[in-house]
Amino acid sequence: MENIGFIGLGIMGKPMAGNLIRAGHRLVVFDIRPEPVEELVRAGAKAAKSTRDVALQSDIVLTMLPNSPEVIDVVLGEEGAIEGMKPGTVLIDMSSIDPLVSREISEKLKHKGVAMLDAPVSGGEPKAVDGTLAIMAGGPREIFDRVKDILGVMGATVTHVGEIGSGNTAKLANQIIVALNIAAMSEAMVLATRAGVDPEKVFQAIRGGLAGSTALEAKMPLILDGQFKPGFRIELHLKDIRNVLDTARKLDAPVILSEKMMEILRSLAEEGKGKDDHGGIVQYYEKLAGVKVRRKTDGH
Amino acid sequence: MENIGFIGLGIMGKPMAGNLIRAGHRLVVFDIRPEPVEELVRAGAKAAKSTRDVALQSDIVLTMLPNSPEVIDVVLGEEGAIEGMKPGTVLIDMSSIDPLVSREISEKLKHKGVAMLDAPVSGGEPKAVDGTLAIMAGGPREIFDRVKDILGVMGATVTHVGEIGSGNTAKLANQIIVALNIAAMSEAMVLATRAGVDPEKVFQAIRGGLAGSTALEAKMPLILDGQFKPGFRIELHLKDIRNVLDTARKLDAPVILSEKMMEILRSLAEEGKGKDDHGGIVQYYEKLAGVKVRRKTDGH
Repeated sequence: MENIGFIGLGIMGKPMAGNLIRAGHRLVVFDIRPEPVEELVRAGAKAAKSTRDVALQSDIVLTMLPNSPEVIDVVLGEEGAIEGMKPGTVLIDMSSIDPLVSREISEKLKHKGVAMLDAPVSGGEPKAVDGTLAIMAGGPREIFDRVKDILGVMGATVTHVGEIGSGNTAKLANQIIVALNIAAMSEAMVLATRAGVDPEKVFQAIRGGLAGSTALEAKMPLILDGQFKPGFRIELHLKDIRNVLDTARKLDAPVILSEKMMEILRSLAEEGKGKDDHGGIVQYYEKLAGVKVRRKTDGH
Repeated sequence: MENIGFIGLGIMGKPMAGNLIRAGHRLVVFDIRPEPVEELVRAGAKAAKSTRDVALQSDIVLTMLPNSPEVIDVVLGEEGAIEGMKPGTVLIDMSSIDPLVSREISEKLKHKGVAMLDAPVSGGEPKAVDGTLAIMAGGPREIFDRVKDILGVMGATVTHVGEIGSGNTAKLANQIIVALNIAAMSEAMVLATRAGVDPEKVFQAIRGGLAGSTALEAKMPLILDGQFKPGFRIELHLKDIRNVLDTARKLDAPVILSEKMMEILRSLAEEGKGKDDHGGIVQYYEKLAGVKVRRKTDGH
């Protein structure tokens, strides 16, 4: 059985690593904070002293980190994982980062005989806990086939999208669609509220038609309750849309609506809403309009 | 049995009227073009000489017209339906128009003892033919209850949203969400294509997650085929988003993304794409990026 290293035991990484342990995998773990390491050691993992130390003891190294700079630092930095990797080691970066950075890291690792997949996830903490994430992977097909079952422990769907970077490209596409759909339903429901119409009735009238979506079903009930406990935080969606704009600039791709979305998310973060669930995007519109999108309770 | 008048026998109105005839209702019909009138007369309807003449012979008058000015003209104009209406007549305007115009028309009709519902529909020609439209109605609850079964002949869902104008408010909400969702998936898929990733693989990777929607399932296959035969035409979505902006201006509601959407739709119409299905919104991005979002056919 292969030794698996896991670096980055945050809100997502810790339950994902926990699921691998429960599925019977041998895990070596590292995080800059001791608490999640201790918790996973109690569950059966081995603690490593550094990211380099993780790599020294692993055939496959998984990383789950906040953004591109952290992945570069952990993998390529001083005492980074690359220093402990042998030819044949596989890196699976499950962080959501700039796809062009995934390609750059992969190029550097290739010189050491190390293969890489970028395999970001969608679904948030609840699905990380349940092991039902949607995992979108990029990188060599034969590497994907080799590690597919390991990814399957953490995800309900595991899709090979294409070459290295294409997992993160799919994730950016996902985040563009989700953010704009939540903003569009917010814009629509604030307009309805301004017109004196019960937004819950509007929701009932449109959910079965072409406006229906997974996000509408997931977020409208929270919006109607004014309940924005995360879930997926606005500050993380801001990070993803910033990666969209960075990637689009490098590729010279038009992202007109994502640019507007960036302004909305940045404004929310500046007003201290960054820790709210992204359903809280509605608050941007509510503030401008001076109304709140809440269901009327008169029962009519 | 009540006599039903039907004014406006276009791509939507004609099959809707046809379904009412087939359900056994007595119909008096009018359109400025003779062909659809003749077709419905062959199916069992009676032809009227004018919109006033329709109203004279009807207990309930249905209108299905392109936009606010046509509804004002047909209902309130010279020789308009209002001249033939008696106290107790009901007007059901099923056109998609400015909700504030619905309110204004309703006010004028009230002086004549005529009640009105605004009851726009969603679902396009196929659902008009099948009698499975989503119908969103505004107006007095007792009038809605009285005509609900008639609307049910044309629609799979018939929802009472609230007071007069709220049907069209729900429709505007619907059109904001649909347009922006199609534009978001276009923006996302053009970015993926620019990054060299197969957009079909991205579609497969994200459809099961929070980015999933009825519009994604309906429109992505058309986008991947480059097939933009309508369906629901871009020029009609442009009209709806123009109504969004008009309504938002009068209500002082923020519609930041709809304003951008208006630019995109107007640009497409100016380039002669107005008759394309709104899935063809992707062409706006394709032109700017110099790529086409099409599935790769190499099978990998």
